[in-house]
Amino acid sequence: MNVAIIGASGYTGLELIKLLVTHPKFNITYVANSTGDINVQDLHPCLKDVINIDVQKASAKEVAKVADLAFLALPHKTSMSFAKELLELNVKVVDLSADYRLELETYEKHYCAHEDKEHIKDSVYGLPEYYKEDIQSAKLIANPGCYPTASLLALLPFIEYIDTNAPIFIDAKSGVSGAGKNPSEATHFGQINENCHSYNPFKHRHMPEIQEKVRLLKNEEVSINFVPHLLPLTRGMLVSVYATLKEDIDVNEILQNTYKDSEFVRIREKPVDIKSTAGTNFCDIYAAKNANALFVSSSIDNLLRGASSQAVVNANLLCGYKEGEGIPKIAYVP
Amino acid sequence: MNVAIIGASGYTGLELIKLLVTHPKFNITYVANSTGDINVQDLHPCLKDVINIDVQKASAKEVAKVADLAFLALPHKTSMSFAKELLELNVKVVDLSADYRLELETYEKHYCAHEDKEHIKDSVYGLPEYYKEDIQSAKLIANPGCYPTASLLALLPFIEYIDTNAPIFIDAKSGVSGAGKNPSEATHFGQINENCHSYNPFKHRHMPEIQEKVRLLKNEEVSINFVPHLLPLTRGMLVSVYATLKEDIDVNEILQNTYKDSEFVRIREKPVDIKSTAGTNFCDIYAAKNANALFVSSSIDNLLRGASSQAVVNANLLCGYKEGEGIPKIAYVP
Amino acid sequence: MNVAIIGASGYTGLELIKLLVTHPKFNITYVANSTGDINVQDLHPCLKDVINIDVQKASAKEVAKVADLAFLALPHKTSMSFAKELLELNVKVVDLSADYRLELETYEKHYCAHEDKEHIKDSVYGLPEYYKEDIQSAKLIANPGCYPTASLLALLPFIEYIDTNAPIFIDAKSGVSGAGKNPSEATHFGQINENCHSYNPFKHRHMPEIQEKVRLLKNEEVSINFVPHLLPLTRGMLVSVYATLKEDIDVNEILQNTYKDSEFVRIREKPVDIKSTAGTNFCDIYAAKNANALFVSSSIDNLLRGASSQAVVNANLLCGYKEGEGIPKIAYVP
Amino acid sequence: MNVAIIGASGYTGLELIKLLVTHPKFNITYVANSTGDINVQDLHPCLKDVINIDVQKASAKEVAKVADLAFLALPHKTSMSFAKELLELNVKVVDLSADYRLELETYEKHYCAHEDKEHIKDSVYGLPEYYKEDIQSAKLIANPGCYPTASLLALLPFIEYIDTNAPIFIDAKSGVSGAGKNPSEATHFGQINENCHSYNPFKHRHMPEIQEKVRLLKNEEVSINFVPHLLPLTRGMLVSVYATLKEDIDVNEILQNTYKDSEFVRIREKPVDIKSTAGTNFCDIYAAKNANALFVSSSIDNLLRGASSQAVVNANLLCGYKEGEGIPKIAYVP
Repeated sequence: MNVAIIGASGYTGLELIKLLVTHPKFNITYVANSTGDINVQDLHPCLKDVINIDVQKASAKEVAKVADLAFLALPHKTSMSFAKELLELNVKVVDLSADYRLELETYEKHYCAHEDKEHIKDSVYGLPEYYKEDIQSAKLIANPGCYPTASLLALLPFIEYIDTNAPIFIDAKSGVSGAGKNPSEATHFGQINENCHSYNPFKHRHMPEIQEKVRLLKNEEVSINFVPHLLPLTRGMLVSVYATLKEDIDVNEILQNTYKDSEFVRIREKPVDIKSTAGTNFCDIYAAKNANALFVSSSIDNLLRGASSQAVVNANLLCGYKEGEGIPKIAYVP
Repeated sequence: MNVAIIGASGYTGLELIKLLVTHPKFNITYVANSTGDINVQDLHPCLKDVINIDVQKASAKEVAKVADLAFLALPHKTSMSFAKELLELNVKVVDLSADYRLELETYEKHYCAHEDKEHIKDSVYGLPEYYKEDIQSAKLIANPGCYPTASLLALLPFIEYIDTNAPIFIDAKSGVSGAGKNPSEATHFGQINENCHSYNPFKHRHMPEIQEKVRLLKNEEVSINFVPHLLPLTRGMLVSVYATLKEDIDVNEILQNTYKDSEFVRIREKPVDIKSTAGTNFCDIYAAKNANALFVSSSIDNLLRGASSQAVVNANLLCGYKEGEGIPKIAYVP
Repeated sequence: MNVAIIGASGYTGLELIKLLVTHPKFNITYVANSTGDINVQDLHPCLKDVINIDVQKASAKEVAKVADLAFLALPHKTSMSFAKELLELNVKVVDLSADYRLELETYEKHYCAHEDKEHIKDSVYGLPEYYKEDIQSAKLIANPGCYPTASLLALLPFIEYIDTNAPIFIDAKSGVSGAGKNPSEATHFGQINENCHSYNPFKHRHMPEIQEKVRLLKNEEVSINFVPHLLPLTRGMLVSVYATLKEDIDVNEILQNTYKDSEFVRIREKPVDIKSTAGTNFCDIYAAKNANALFVSSSIDNLLRGASSQAVVNANLLCGYKEGEGIPKIAYVP
Repeated sequence: MNVAIIGASGYTGLELIKLLVTHPKFNITYVANSTGDINVQDLHPCLKDVINIDVQKASAKEVAKVADLAFLALPHKTSMSFAKELLELNVKVVDLSADYRLELETYEKHYCAHEDKEHIKDSVYGLPEYYKEDIQSAKLIANPGCYPTASLLALLPFIEYIDTNAPIFIDAKSGVSGAGKNPSEATHFGQINENCHSYNPFKHRHMPEIQEKVRLLKNEEVSINFVPHLLPLTRGMLVSVYATLKEDIDVNEILQNTYKDSEFVRIREKPVDIKSTAGTNFCDIYAAKNANALFVSSSIDNLLRGASSQAVVNANLLCGYKEGEGIPKIAYVP
């Protein structure tokens, strides 16, 4: 199947290229960014002698000529205009932005006015462990955010055992690549290195995404209190969920049962770490309890399971291929 | 005043030397470790041309001959035997180990049998913001653990506004120097670098220390649920406290009021970071709330405010000097 | 082809497993370390759900029953005894240690007495760009050291243009994984992080290896002056070669000509960096000159091109497969 | 003595503030950057509760009203216009930029047209080990570049024993703070972390500075071939000098003799590292030889010995204070 990548300049665009260039079923026929007029090897020097293709100035019409499926690795708002046009041209879309992840009201409250309202209802939230069947028949996938992916996979198995009147706290820790490739004060080496801090406590846009998905999947209105932190490392994410249990449970049994058929979730008996999932699509999960206090810790590669490899898993499912086709399991260790 | 440092080989011993060699009131007359027979410049090459003193094999009797005050930077259990002997020889003691931090029962449950029970009652917990007067008249200071220092300074101001029936969660993040100078799998560069994980969730020995001090200071039996994490950086600590509020409060006003006279606590209006306190005795604190969810974030240098500079502050107070005498405020930035 | 990995506990053993588990031609039938009695997933937790095989206590006889080719990722001296026995049992060997890399006299001067002298002459130095034909018909490959790989690939193209009476300087910089997985003072995070230093200047054992190979390949007795440095990063290596030119040359043309048929050498027009080769078998090379001063900079992944992936390339050639079969080209970027 | 700091926003400006706020002789009366209208605690949050002063929009006339000495931590070209005006107003100047470091011709070839030619001849190159007397009577100090400081202190003792017809190679490695505080692709965490590369090989502007000073101090025209590299760490610098000896020498004896009276040079018997000098004004030096090959390795804190603390040493000397007054010797270890 011929595929296009729109938004090739950023980290998630690069990860898509890296995944798709070795994928046994997908064939990259079109790569674009906002300017075009550059070879992909000049955009990403690590791709020298790996793939040789010219990067175009993004055009939905050109995509439709050469590809049946497009991955959009674009900022929100930019993404919806491409998605709309591509869908109307019968190109399937896996959208890595936030544009189709949320119900309209939630989206417009936390992002901006939506300009493609009609396709929101067609979109499927691309968390394969919970929406696999819908994904298989979708035309538009809203690929989840990195924090919601790690948070939901950790939290969802326990919702029915949690006192949902009490606040649920999520202390999330992300590598700096989550902040993107553009230089800024926040990504300056001198600012990040040997440092750690929270940012946007209780105000990050992934907080309503987690809250909404818990409601839709579990029919529970929970109070998600989300505090992200930046770690002095490039890739990877660790999410610590803290909640109040309303009954005594075997946390491991619950995890094992929930994910016994999930190829890309590994239940761990020791606390999870970032390195064991870096470079892979795995989500590792560990849980512990102390009286009525619950701790669930999950680890993902923020650029892969939190973005690009989950997007390719979704594309696999949508195209009828095996979930794990071309999906990396070999971690960047050491 | 002549002082001794016992336990000069480790990180906190080195920090004590660095602080005391430039201190205007204290004069280092004795430095010891478990073996002796080495110059301090060979033990710590960074001290070349800074201080020239022979490191002795530790002996309480020798200390008593040349010093009025001893800093013990020793492992727990080793520390109590020296402290006992020094106190009997009329040498004042600032003990950086856990040996006198806890009530007997708590100590023996979490550490080992105590061999100097009689001095436990004489010891003062060296958290100056809460025990200043007791410290000023003490002969034996139990210097707090690093995690309890950052956790208590963040949590204590809010205890009366917190629903103490709900679990309090503390997600703590420490630099690797907290694990000491001895090589181990846990401190191997290849294990720590580009990585992050929790360890001993709900089982760290600093958890009962926090719980006990809240009870003693606030007369509240709280449920502290403590999960420490290792950060890929050398020095510094960030502690995130999560609790359930029972009333609507102005979090900043409470912090400002609590610490308005505290020279070494800085209330921040933006989330605190590790770098701004690294190299100093400051504890920076930030708080935010979301409905009934409370988030308090504190940052300290784990080796200074969490150990050695707090020990020197305690020594200052105990000797009648100014709290800030010789205490660093200039951070390792950038 | 069925293959064995002996020495599975260390970093290069892990890399071999990671490479071979996804290799289209090789089938891992035997994995061993010095103790055995453990599953490979417990030895390397990142391999959970990737490969499920018991790790044996190493035995050459057992290897011979189940494999035609063995990779030895063992310390020098240990390696030669296994190699000897395996060769006598008709198992082909790719040895990652130093045991067969050098002429007997050089080896015994810099390492120890050799206990398998007869196989030294059969061994082929596994630097594919210079020994491809010999490798294709070999039974015993001496896989080059990491520093010699990067140094020789950078230096060899220029030997005939260099004033070999003048000293050649090699300033090499390696990630910490080169020091292995065992904890030591030298690999302690607190020692490496935010630090850099040289070690064993002019005394590293890879210096005679480089010198010998230049003599054998170019018939020139050169003065190699090698100074390795440790970088505060986990994987990768950058080598800077400095030499005196005896004539005016086009450095790029020479590099392009030398490596025009080399699948895994990339000539760069800008200074090479470590990240672009990390995770791959590529060696990137850049050169510049200033009057008669020559600078050549090469970058490799020390664990892959400097050890395990080069070993698999050698195995590919030795077995008649394509050089690049199953060999990674996708870098760990970002 | 009242002093001004112009250029307070960058790293070297911050370091000047940190040094001068605790200096026993200097009193900061004026702090400026290019915009003004901000408190220094908002510019550098780590200075909260350390110093409370408004940052002005830089004006030489205002400086002259309140200070006798000004430190200029400005970009080249900007610096010369302030220096000129300040000198005419009888304010002494320690200039951290390149503007007065070089002879006119060299300067204009490598930087830009000079707009204060008359003061070039009055300036003294502020490398105290070699220009102490001139500094003591100067009105204008040209503070050396970071690379030249570490390179010259390592190289100068050996010039008379070196074959100056052969190229001298300097492989320099700098922490990222040397690239300044402004965000750029080159200082993005994702670009620097786990990476290392050379930049501007043979083309860095510090190369002619080193070459000129060797000529002026030793009356030798040498061929300096300088290749800087970026290290994945924030502060510190390691310089490796490689040269050809023309006679057999005792490298340690030469170093010991050269620097026997130098308070801030430490000769090391083991290879120097970055951490032992970070946070201090020390330059550590180690040397080794191999036949006629010489290796000299020096380590400094690029922001202190390579900029701000050397500037304060120069100010001490210029004002008749002791060289080491208020100058840090306690390293950032661990």
